[in-house]
Amino acid sequence: MKIDLNADMGESFGMYRLGADDQFMAHITSANVACGFHAGDPSVMKQTVALAKQHNVQVGAHPGLPDLQGFGRREMKLSPEEVYDIVIYQVGALKAFCEAAGIALQHVKPHGSLYGMAHRLEAVAQAICQAVKDLDARLYLYIMKKGVIAQAAESMGLRTVYELYSDLAYDGEGNLVITRTHDAHNPSAVAARVRGMVVDHTVKTTDGTEIAIEGQSVCVHGDTPGAFEIVKAVRGALVSAGCELTAPQG
Amino acid sequence: MKIDLNADMGESFGMYRLGADDQFMAHITSANVACGFHAGDPSVMKQTVALAKQHNVQVGAHPGLPDLQGFGRREMKLSPEEVYDIVIYQVGALKAFCEAAGIALQHVKPHGSLYGMAHRLEAVAQAICQAVKDLDARLYLYIMKKGVIAQAAESMGLRTVYELYSDLAYDGEGNLVITRTHDAHNPSAVAARVRGMVVDHTVKTTDGTEIAIEGQSVCVHGDTPGAFEIVKAVRGALVSAGCELTAPQG
Amino acid sequence: MKIDLNADMGESFGMYRLGADDQFMAHITSANVACGFHAGDPSVMKQTVALAKQHNVQVGAHPGLPDLQGFGRREMKLSPEEVYDIVIYQVGALKAFCEAAGIALQHVKPHGSLYGMAHRLEAVAQAICQAVKDLDARLYLYIMKKGVIAQAAESMGLRTVYELYSDLAYDGEGNLVITRTHDAHNPSAVAARVRGMVVDHTVKTTDGTEIAIEGQSVCVHGDTPGAFEIVKAVRGALVSAGCELTAPQG
Amino acid sequence: MKIDLNADMGESFGMYRLGADDQFMAHITSANVACGFHAGDPSVMKQTVALAKQHNVQVGAHPGLPDLQGFGRREMKLSPEEVYDIVIYQVGALKAFCEAAGIALQHVKPHGSLYGMAHRLEAVAQAICQAVKDLDARLYLYIMKKGVIAQAAESMGLRTVYELYSDLAYDGEGNLVITRTHDAHNPSAVAARVRGMVVDHTVKTTDGTEIAIEGQSVCVHGDTPGAFEIVKAVRGALVSAGCELTAPQG
Repeated sequence: MKIDLNADMGESFGMYRLGADDQFMAHITSANVACGFHAGDPSVMKQTVALAKQHNVQVGAHPGLPDLQGFGRREMKLSPEEVYDIVIYQVGALKAFCEAAGIALQHVKPHGSLYGMAHRLEAVAQAICQAVKDLDARLYLYIMKKGVIAQAAESMGLRTVYELYSDLAYDGEGNLVITRTHDAHNPSAVAARVRGMVVDHTVKTTDGTEIAIEGQSVCVHGDTPGAFEIVKAVRGALVSAGCELTAPQG
Repeated sequence: MKIDLNADMGESFGMYRLGADDQFMAHITSANVACGFHAGDPSVMKQTVALAKQHNVQVGAHPGLPDLQGFGRREMKLSPEEVYDIVIYQVGALKAFCEAAGIALQHVKPHGSLYGMAHRLEAVAQAICQAVKDLDARLYLYIMKKGVIAQAAESMGLRTVYELYSDLAYDGEGNLVITRTHDAHNPSAVAARVRGMVVDHTVKTTDGTEIAIEGQSVCVHGDTPGAFEIVKAVRGALVSAGCELTAPQG
Repeated sequence: MKIDLNADMGESFGMYRLGADDQFMAHITSANVACGFHAGDPSVMKQTVALAKQHNVQVGAHPGLPDLQGFGRREMKLSPEEVYDIVIYQVGALKAFCEAAGIALQHVKPHGSLYGMAHRLEAVAQAICQAVKDLDARLYLYIMKKGVIAQAAESMGLRTVYELYSDLAYDGEGNLVITRTHDAHNPSAVAARVRGMVVDHTVKTTDGTEIAIEGQSVCVHGDTPGAFEIVKAVRGALVSAGCELTAPQG
Repeated sequence: MKIDLNADMGESFGMYRLGADDQFMAHITSANVACGFHAGDPSVMKQTVALAKQHNVQVGAHPGLPDLQGFGRREMKLSPEEVYDIVIYQVGALKAFCEAAGIALQHVKPHGSLYGMAHRLEAVAQAICQAVKDLDARLYLYIMKKGVIAQAAESMGLRTVYELYSDLAYDGEGNLVITRTHDAHNPSAVAARVRGMVVDHTVKTTDGTEIAIEGQSVCVHGDTPGAFEIVKAVRGALVSAGCELTAPQG
């Protein structure tokens, strides 16, 4: 059983450090790299692409809402055209760093509230999918199986990778609970939960029920307290369960 | 005699309109499109690329300093690495809009103070040239023949297009006088001056001397008062002088 | 009958000009000055305060959402604490320009989507009122009579000025229809409508009904096409109706 | 002997944490609070003012260049008018948080490259001093004794506090060496150096000579590695030398 392990990387900005990318990169197979709107800057992007290349980690663009102070986690009412435009812009900027480094961009994953809006709002979902299709139809789109963007992506024929979230809760309707800061979690509890999602295809929701879930990539957040312990525990649990950790394009 | 006519386009931002791109685009052969740092935004970039495509105008990236309020005309002490990074980022963002629109990016032209610094500072010049080379060595680099960036570009084997400025003065040493706002000019005087630069290869400087000058493209600024009259006059003068107006890649 | 005539001023940014403040300022009694988040910049703010002082126009702060590209007209999900904080910050910045110019800040008026959110959302309304109260309880708060912010302001004992909108429509429930761009309007039709609101206390809504309305200040937008003709027509109609045009503090 | 101990506080931004203000605030007497241009944001400013108030630490505004990515440490060629305007804006914003918290703003200290430019460039120095004078002539201006801004401040009659730098080197001409990142330092070596500056009025320069130096406040940087150990060591050394640690206004 093949499984991808993705994490948000390159979220530092200027003097500000966020996450421990240097440690983290060695343990994942795909990196979602911030593109300067909600986090990251051109210099951080270049360094993050170089670090990913060094660790043979596939690179994806992680476009977000234009709100550095809110880290892209404050919903903004953008028009579908504006959503399309900010996705093209950000993905293009990161793609250029990949091209300059001699590697291929693997995927696009909407960040934060943009991800949440894409999950819920038809017009936002369509705009993101259209942007990916227009820019490079071979790019993978990282999303959740449940939600309107999955339908939009399927109907446009995009290559999708469904995600499983190691450290965010699912509510009773199977929707991800996006928070502005991530709570601390117990690494072995997270690892056991991920193993359940990957191997048994089930997860427990915030209201205590168990739901079916499916995905080809597990997401771990680098800004969760104890993130480094979590990614190692998750990786260990998946390897123990007989999974091969590899990126879609790997 | 072939000559290119370039202008800065796409300098509007959000609610703010700058320049009369709709009118201007029909009269030029290459457009330098702002990339969101000193002017422009993702939505303006998409619209500007579409407008250029509609008029068969070649598109270039016009990367600037990260200073929207100063319009990229306030010099900033960036490290050479930072210069490299902001060029890759901005050119990549615009390239993506070109790719999504199904056209090729033709060139890169540094904007404002970045252009001035590149003309004067070896490390800045090297950083810009390296960024263009790493991203896509087939891109033309629009610069002035005099200045350290011309030497850097030549020694790296980049494809250069030397520019002639219709509406900025040259000082006694042949350097362009970059101003934060552009003065009004008489269209027919500008046209005659351009004709002299293109056909006779000479121009009069701010201290009254006449110097030799050479170039394959004439630049007209859209934010100069009366810009629309100027571009028509310049075009008319060049056509009358027997020049064929065409982009390098046209 | 005393009536105030307010307009949004100081919405230019860097190289970008918006509105015809020089012409407009002579015709109003209170100016809502942008504070750099949705429009304006420190230099524009200083110049706008100086212009208002020169015309004996009272100055108010016009704080908006932190979204220059969207002109503060794209709703953002800020927490009430964040709303409080951006109001203190922006009002304080403008107050400093007033103090440096030797005049008093008269009022605060939330801008765009912040105004709309304050009208609708209890927590946002409370946050704005608390910020005004904490900073300087003598400041007038410009709002609409209908809406949760009016109740919040009354219960906190703030000094309110209720507004009448010359150039934005009211829907059937009496709520203002905030748009990202303002449509053109016929000056004499606008003037007649304003006269009806001020003198007869009634206005026709988007669904054709007539509702009661009350206010001490009429707002005219400077970025509406033909704004200058509108403000003159409105002023003329009010003077003809026997109104005295004066700011609350005037 | 009375001596003030100042530190830069409130340099976090959005999700990004910088410095350990919670620990640091208990050990200083004056806080230089970032105002959102080079660091800080409205929410961080409010929290920092509240923290200072809780520890009876006097609050100063720390205005910087409008360059969050460069942390205000990349020199920008602003006009004197622009310098004046960004100082009024930023100091006003912070002053408002002080007023809302019921405390008085004590001082203004230019940050980073703005501090360096003020030290060197007459027009910049004049602009900063004029802004402080126009806004509130009772504010203290924190500067170095050597440099053009000291002369400008004296000639305008401003209340000055001369600073001694615990963790930045002085060159042979007595000028501060501003760096974009601060090197690690040995706490007891720093403390001994500060003791020498405060008690003996001398310091060793980067070229090995010893120069005379004078000041009423010692600055410690919170973003220097080991900053917390340094501030405790400095404080201890000064108390041991018989100094009373107190803010100018304390």
